[in-house]
Amino acid sequence: MADTAGKPTDPLAGVAPHVAAVSLDNIANIAKQAFNKDNVVPLWFGEGDLPTPAFVGEAAAQAIRDGHVFYTYQNGIPELRQTLADYHTRLCNTTVGPERITVTSGGMPAIMLAVQLVLEPGDNIVVIDPVWPNIGGITRLLGGEVRSVRMDLGEGGWTLDLEKVAAACDARTRAIFYASPGNPTGAMVPLEVQRELLAFARPRGIWLIADEVYYRLVFGWEAGDTILDISEPEDRVLIINSFSKAWAMTGWRLGWLVHPPSLGPRLAMMVQYTTSGTATFLQHAAIAAIRQGEPFVAEMNRYCQQGMEIVCDALEQMPRVRLRARPEAAMYVFFEIEGMTDSRAACLDILNATQVGLAPGLYFGKGSESFVRLCFCRSPDLLREAMERLRPFLS
Amino acid sequence: MADTAGKPTDPLAGVAPHVAAVSLDNIANIAKQAFNKDNVVPLWFGEGDLPTPAFVGEAAAQAIRDGHVFYTYQNGIPELRQTLADYHTRLCNTTVGPERITVTSGGMPAIMLAVQLVLEPGDNIVVIDPVWPNIGGITRLLGGEVRSVRMDLGEGGWTLDLEKVAAACDARTRAIFYASPGNPTGAMVPLEVQRELLAFARPRGIWLIADEVYYRLVFGWEAGDTILDISEPEDRVLIINSFSKAWAMTGWRLGWLVHPPSLGPRLAMMVQYTTSGTATFLQHAAIAAIRQGEPFVAEMNRYCQQGMEIVCDALEQMPRVRLRARPEAAMYVFFEIEGMTDSRAACLDILNATQVGLAPGLYFGKGSESFVRLCFCRSPDLLREAMERLRPFLS
Repeated sequence: MADTAGKPTDPLAGVAPHVAAVSLDNIANIAKQAFNKDNVVPLWFGEGDLPTPAFVGEAAAQAIRDGHVFYTYQNGIPELRQTLADYHTRLCNTTVGPERITVTSGGMPAIMLAVQLVLEPGDNIVVIDPVWPNIGGITRLLGGEVRSVRMDLGEGGWTLDLEKVAAACDARTRAIFYASPGNPTGAMVPLEVQRELLAFARPRGIWLIADEVYYRLVFGWEAGDTILDISEPEDRVLIINSFSKAWAMTGWRLGWLVHPPSLGPRLAMMVQYTTSGTATFLQHAAIAAIRQGEPFVAEMNRYCQQGMEIVCDALEQMPRVRLRARPEAAMYVFFEIEGMTDSRAACLDILNATQVGLAPGLYFGKGSESFVRLCFCRSPDLLREAMERLRPFLS
Repeated sequence: MADTAGKPTDPLAGVAPHVAAVSLDNIANIAKQAFNKDNVVPLWFGEGDLPTPAFVGEAAAQAIRDGHVFYTYQNGIPELRQTLADYHTRLCNTTVGPERITVTSGGMPAIMLAVQLVLEPGDNIVVIDPVWPNIGGITRLLGGEVRSVRMDLGEGGWTLDLEKVAAACDARTRAIFYASPGNPTGAMVPLEVQRELLAFARPRGIWLIADEVYYRLVFGWEAGDTILDISEPEDRVLIINSFSKAWAMTGWRLGWLVHPPSLGPRLAMMVQYTTSGTATFLQHAAIAAIRQGEPFVAEMNRYCQQGMEIVCDALEQMPRVRLRARPEAAMYVFFEIEGMTDSRAACLDILNATQVGLAPGLYFGKGSESFVRLCFCRSPDLLREAMERLRPFLS
């Protein structure tokens, strides 16, 4: 009853100290500034404007009508696990069995499970950035330390220096987290580099957590590279995947983890004690997405590439924009603005001046304070409009 | 590449030690014994046989068609938070505001968030048992210690001895967890006792985590007691709730947390880094459940009471059954079998001999090894059939 003593309520009273220490600041706080603004072009979130294909929604509705509304398997229903195993087997150069698949309630829960599985409180995870901030968030929430290794930006784009990775690791390093294709960079970690990373990690018992959420959005390719191609099933490798991006299902909260087969029962236990599983009727929608979704995924890939070209063509003409290399994949262009040092203030200025919503670079790791992220998974007309608005500000 | 060395794969290699220490044994492992059996009457899980009311499914399908398939608010959509706040305000004797509601992807994620919010690794949570095992599971997964305090079983039923609770608490106790109505006991912690618990916890900065998932299934009452009636908004009280039981929505993964208003932003951050929120179209189904579901909830309450009476009438006639008091609420009868000391072996024997699936008492806390849990949220015919089958074994 803090209030009754007449004192202001301390919202952190009673919160675990490591949880109280996690920052509340995030991209959504910028977006909140636009609640009362009309006519904003919102390019801050990692979400497109294409709705989920109708057949996915119909599959969910049918599964509800069919009564798939009871408790279910913790690792996912067998039919979806098999469907995802077949999906990977078709796209990669090895055979993936269903015992390696655990269905999750989104890509984020897949990351949560991966970190929880390997992290002892007080240990650390080496995170390759610029990176989506949530891997840092869950690591801190679970009492771990985040060690950042920044990729290098040269004329050819972003590259990973393995010596920096090695220097960041110590005896308490439990995992190395990287995303390929990357968010916010759209850059890839070449398979040769991933192979070296694995060779470094194996003898040290360090896990690789590979975020492959943008695997299907490599421009001009059916799919990107995957660590499945260069690892063994029982390697300490955990692959994060999601229906959000390639199938336009951000709001569905559906993802999956590819893991060593021996860990299936342990992950089932962890699912039981965290989310208790994913709604069966949503898993039926996921089966439909995989089985009937290939034309849509191909369309989404082209849509993103088209958006990237519109945006990069325009940005490259703006004097204050510094963009070394066009993204090869994903949904974002991550560019520097000359003369800007506070990306948060700049994004607010840009929002106020142009009504275009961008995400500040600072959320994606230290060293990115002069960058902003723009999501180009939007209609050509909207992107052209956004570029027209940004031009005066960035000239 | 553990396999390539010719050694058997150790499924715990690389798993965080405190995660490796969590038992994989649970009720589902008993249920697996029945995979190849026909004609099993499954009374082991906490789930009824009534399907979700059709209007809930239709609301979800409509929301998908309406395009509610994008990212959403971390604390839940405003309309559902307001609907749940109004729901509580109607049923309890105080006003609950929407800023006290965070929508979760099930009751289990609500428990996960509650424990995560307050628990520093190495600290402890005092858990009142017999209890659903998942509170212990998530506490251990998060690196905490579980301290059990067993309720006392007398002729009048289960009662909580506050002196035992006080004796279990120390400077590292972060919370006391209790369920009222209880699973597996169907017993309630009277509001006077909850008031004393709160008086004990307040000056010590200990949280109360009150599981009120069976709040609507108190036989003969519209709703049970709630700690909302005796606490202040900024008390360190977290209330767990779920759509699973009263609305027959186990497989939907929908629940909510009632919390101090000041913690909304922090819980939003935690949702972001764990589940990233609950599908908007499912939240529209939840709104329909609350707004149109009262007749169904009343029917579910009567259905459970009817099931309880059929089962208790029969069990009370079986010589080996020791049932001190009938459950007043929820979906379970938790009874002792005379001469039985290993509830796990007994449940397997019962399954093999009678094809009736029961849950072993050992999963619900120490001291319950001679108990079994039976879920009576089933049709009268099925329950009578189960009782006929059990009679020879329990006589």
